Amino acid sequence: MPDISAGIAPVIPVDRSSPLPLHRQVYIGFRDAIVRGDLAAGQRIPSSRALASELEISRFPVLDAYSQLLAEGYFESRVGAGTYVAASLPARDLSRSRHAPAESRPTSRRSQLFPRYQQVPWRHGWGAFGVHQPALDQFPFEIWARLVTRHSRMPRASAVHFINPMGLDAFRDAICSYLRTARSVRCDPDQIMVVSGSQQALDITARVLVDPEDSVWVEEPCYPQLRAILLGSGCRVTPVPIDREGIDVAAGIRLSPHARAAFVTPSHHYALGVTMSASRRLQLLEWARNANGWIIEDDYDSEYRFESMPMPSLQGLDPTNRVIYIGTFSKVLRPSLRLGYIVIPADLLERFKAVRFSMDIFPPYLFQEVLTDFMRAGHFARHIRRMRALYKARRTALTESLRKEFGTFLEIHGAEAGMHLTVTLPEGYNDIAIATRAAQEKLWLWPLSPCYASANPRHGFILGYANVPEDMIPAAVRHMRQIVAPE
Amino acid sequence: MPDISAGIAPVIPVDRSSPLPLHRQVYIGFRDAIVRGDLAAGQRIPSSRALASELEISRFPVLDAYSQLLAEGYFESRVGAGTYVAASLPARDLSRSRHAPAESRPTSRRSQLFPRYQQVPWRHGWGAFGVHQPALDQFPFEIWARLVTRHSRMPRASAVHFINPMGLDAFRDAICSYLRTARSVRCDPDQIMVVSGSQQALDITARVLVDPEDSVWVEEPCYPQLRAILLGSGCRVTPVPIDREGIDVAAGIRLSPHARAAFVTPSHHYALGVTMSASRRLQLLEWARNANGWIIEDDYDSEYRFESMPMPSLQGLDPTNRVIYIGTFSKVLRPSLRLGYIVIPADLLERFKAVRFSMDIFPPYLFQEVLTDFMRAGHFARHIRRMRALYKARRTALTESLRKEFGTFLEIHGAEAGMHLTVTLPEGYNDIAIATRAAQEKLWLWPLSPCYASANPRHGFILGYANVPEDMIPAAVRHMRQIVAPE
Repeated sequence: MPDISAGIAPVIPVDRSSPLPLHRQVYIGFRDAIVRGDLAAGQRIPSSRALASELEISRFPVLDAYSQLLAEGYFESRVGAGTYVAASLPARDLSRSRHAPAESRPTSRRSQLFPRYQQVPWRHGWGAFGVHQPALDQFPFEIWARLVTRHSRMPRASAVHFINPMGLDAFRDAICSYLRTARSVRCDPDQIMVVSGSQQALDITARVLVDPEDSVWVEEPCYPQLRAILLGSGCRVTPVPIDREGIDVAAGIRLSPHARAAFVTPSHHYALGVTMSASRRLQLLEWARNANGWIIEDDYDSEYRFESMPMPSLQGLDPTNRVIYIGTFSKVLRPSLRLGYIVIPADLLERFKAVRFSMDIFPPYLFQEVLTDFMRAGHFARHIRRMRALYKARRTALTESLRKEFGTFLEIHGAEAGMHLTVTLPEGYNDIAIATRAAQEKLWLWPLSPCYASANPRHGFILGYANVPEDMIPAAVRHMRQIVAPE
Repeated sequence: MPDISAGIAPVIPVDRSSPLPLHRQVYIGFRDAIVRGDLAAGQRIPSSRALASELEISRFPVLDAYSQLLAEGYFESRVGAGTYVAASLPARDLSRSRHAPAESRPTSRRSQLFPRYQQVPWRHGWGAFGVHQPALDQFPFEIWARLVTRHSRMPRASAVHFINPMGLDAFRDAICSYLRTARSVRCDPDQIMVVSGSQQALDITARVLVDPEDSVWVEEPCYPQLRAILLGSGCRVTPVPIDREGIDVAAGIRLSPHARAAFVTPSHHYALGVTMSASRRLQLLEWARNANGWIIEDDYDSEYRFESMPMPSLQGLDPTNRVIYIGTFSKVLRPSLRLGYIVIPADLLERFKAVRFSMDIFPPYLFQEVLTDFMRAGHFARHIRRMRALYKARRTALTESLRKEFGTFLEIHGAEAGMHLTVTLPEGYNDIAIATRAAQEKLWLWPLSPCYASANPRHGFILGYANVPEDMIPAAVRHMRQIVAPE
């Protein structure tokens, strides 16, 4: 009964030495007592004068606290009759389940489809032979910082307030002209959507193009994070074997003729480094036309080829506009910029915009502005040229060291291009076990087997060399040999 | 038959005035002829000498082009017998459907659930009375640019190579301590995930918590982009009416007692500005406990309250850890930074990480570093204090001008907090029609009716004032009156 306790002040803990102001302590004391159920709905509250005297503090903080509690609806005042805990508050005691509940709490079935996030040590290590690591010490940070500063000091309202799910117009112009020239991509700036990297590109594309239960071709092996997003989408993922010419289109047709889409890396297969042959490219385009399917070309590291001209994109070969082209600045610049792009067939633009706008509205402005200037001033092309020479030398040093230390024990794949190569181990070696040992000694070996869907994967390592100075490579490879310990 | 055309050079267009090198022109000419089907698989190619003579160019570019075409597998050479179009190329003519196909091409059913992206003019206008626009001319860009420059010139490898789907540790510490102090959120840094803003927070949360066909409560009216993401998820969206105390929990229970989640804006309802009362907060927490449901608290602009202390978060009231708390830096800083955060109950962390890692891996580094320093040095708190005084003055100028120009014609809602207030129109006025007219005169009135799911919405405008100097407000309101043109 409310009136039983009328006039009795609840225990409001007040600590004069706390940095929290007294009015705040009083407020929190009452609020928590109400939430706990120690003070019941309709119960009378002591007058501010009485409480202040009880707590031996000034009346002002008490008045402050009461007015806040009234404003928020914990208290109500009745004219001429004092202050009460609001009668409309629910009476039940919420504190019963203060601690995390024993029963498991519901998450969505669709979220259960995503593979567990594993904090594997090699992903976080910096140095030999971490994958996706450009030579940061070679990056023109002074030029970059000057552009960043210019765009940060007095940004134009049009830059900070653009709200376009496709990205900044000037940046898309720059990307378009780069792709036409360097990658033979057929596109207009209108078709280019700026995203946070290949991964977001794959996620948006999967949302627009595939439904749960749709069959989708992926290369076997493939980038594990591609498989993650497709499994998360609820698709049926069909691994299609790779041979020396790239994806085996005939095998794909046998396994799943009516797949909705094929996700491929034609320029430099991840992780075996194969370049898709012209014949396979045309077969794949023909399959897509016959099956009314889509091709997603992930051109993640096409900038670096060492033995021949860069291979033109598959997208540029396709007269039927069935290729969605994905690129990233993670390799030439760095992953933590989070910048990539999608080239979208014109008739798909409307759905891509709708999905992207709902996902995260638009991409952040600064690096778009900075990179536009960086590209226009020629720094981007110059940096690629410099890195191509540097990475080629590092690549050669690595293949030579691997030959010297390992002989034919390791087979080398995909050393003609990119920022990594892959070595495969003989039967019986377990790449994850070795990589775990190596990580304890701060040598970063990315295991190959997680790239396979098969229960019987090849074992080996993806070795990033872009970030390893030439003169450090022989020692790192010797270190690797000690850990791999071939007979 | 291949041999019929042997020795006949195909038409390879070569243009000496083109910036494209000759070898590239020859390469493209052959490749396109093969893709078009003008050159058939197995067909013999003229010798490089013959073609060079035919084209009246040097033999070197022809040799370059041939070697690239051989490398890519368009050509093959037969020992002692010259060069041929590769016999393995598919024979069919891909050019038949060169133009966009007449039939509509398949996109996913799930992408069809997303509402169309509409490029409404008021979203893009800068100035009176654009919503979500902070006073950029008041932002300490010099301090900001100094921090940006520092972190751009010589970034630490640990900053540019962190790859944590939760975000940078130091930044999450800073956010955590801000939320505990200013918002009474109960959290540890471990529970904080850095995202690109409220929208991505809502998208990730919906993916983790709700399945297609699940019922979800949203406030009626609500932020249209929240409804978009939920519709895109395939949920059944249950609009629950708002009254002066916020969401009507009893009505929600009548409409859909077993909803999986409730998405609410307790501090400052979007768009009517109501603050959820203590009673409703406790009722909502009780419903969630009984229904085994989740509450998503979008605390998008809680920093600015003008009449009382900031209202503590609902999350901090909840002893059962059923509240997912979402915040953003879009309001205090600017939307184009794309920075926000989620405070995640501990038992949900694993699924949030898995989904986020698949969506876009991790957030970009720079602004996380910069904002950490900006917060630690006290600039963030100082900027909020300055803007609170400034926005309060602008808010007061706006309400006074609205009273003066419109009298009781417009009803004002939610002027106690935030960066916008809402006015509602009498029956019979159409807000979208008026907003469209106003946009033609560069006055930006965000219509209220799109915030309703109901076919019979209230009409009115959401008026952002944070970016409108006090002395410009009377003229802007007069302008608005001329356009609204009340009798």
